[in-house]
Amino acid sequence: MVVRFDDEYFMREALKQARQAYAGDEIPVGAVIVCDGEIIARGYNMTEKLNDVTAHAEMLVITSAAEQLGGKYLVDCSLYVTLEPCVMCVGATQWAQIGKIVYGAKDEKRGFTNYSKKILHPKTKVVTGILEKECSELMVGFFKNKR
Amino acid sequence: MVVRFDDEYFMREALKQARQAYAGDEIPVGAVIVCDGEIIARGYNMTEKLNDVTAHAEMLVITSAAEQLGGKYLVDCSLYVTLEPCVMCVGATQWAQIGKIVYGAKDEKRGFTNYSKKILHPKTKVVTGILEKECSELMVGFFKNKR
Repeated sequence: MVVRFDDEYFMREALKQARQAYAGDEIPVGAVIVCDGEIIARGYNMTEKLNDVTAHAEMLVITSAAEQLGGKYLVDCSLYVTLEPCVMCVGATQWAQIGKIVYGAKDEKRGFTNYSKKILHPKTKVVTGILEKECSELMVGFFKNKR
Repeated sequence: MVVRFDDEYFMREALKQARQAYAGDEIPVGAVIVCDGEIIARGYNMTEKLNDVTAHAEMLVITSAAEQLGGKYLVDCSLYVTLEPCVMCVGATQWAQIGKIVYGAKDEKRGFTNYSKKILHPKTKVVTGILEKECSELMVGFFKNKR
């Protein structure tokens, strides 16, 4: 049996978003939010385009998902993001009480696990390493081109 | 000699913003960003109105200040906020490399100092307790009315 809508499936959708960021010369991070097996928000890093440090992929999809649901709590939602979220973004998921965070590549410098796991909402589950290689290669490729 | 443009002066301006939040039935937190002695952004908590957990006063003024300056780094700026910022907002100041954070009341539950001071950008100075009583009373009054 092929399970179509698993973590890898949704991470591939987040990767598509990350590639859009790449194409726009943004650090290639993409995210989707899933509720009841359906993607309700898609977004990618737009910090350069919007000239705004707060415009991370995760922040944009959290705002968008709340708009979509008509409520600001995302208890029954899962956030898929290609890179380990920073403290700002995990702080946002804490306020939103998000159900699950799934991330691909680890962010050795700015990922929230470098600071404190206490930042997570106590009910948020975390899954790591989904399509880690693809997510990581996209980042490495981006920075290699910058040099 | 009366020093007009000191930390108290700018905190009073942040308090004016917080009162606007209060009037709109939002948790009363207000913020301003100051650059070269001038207020370049003013804002208050709009999480209810915008149905968005990311719409904290600090986030709104960081976005607005970057727009005003035409650059996303706020190295020469000071953030005045009536309540101790949460990890999301301090995470944003870390990305913006903000020069100084001045806050009034302590947030015993969600303030960033309950988690990790490492979240701060290493160059960000922090000043606490400016008009603490006024900032705190506004919060206490708001929640008392809610009961």
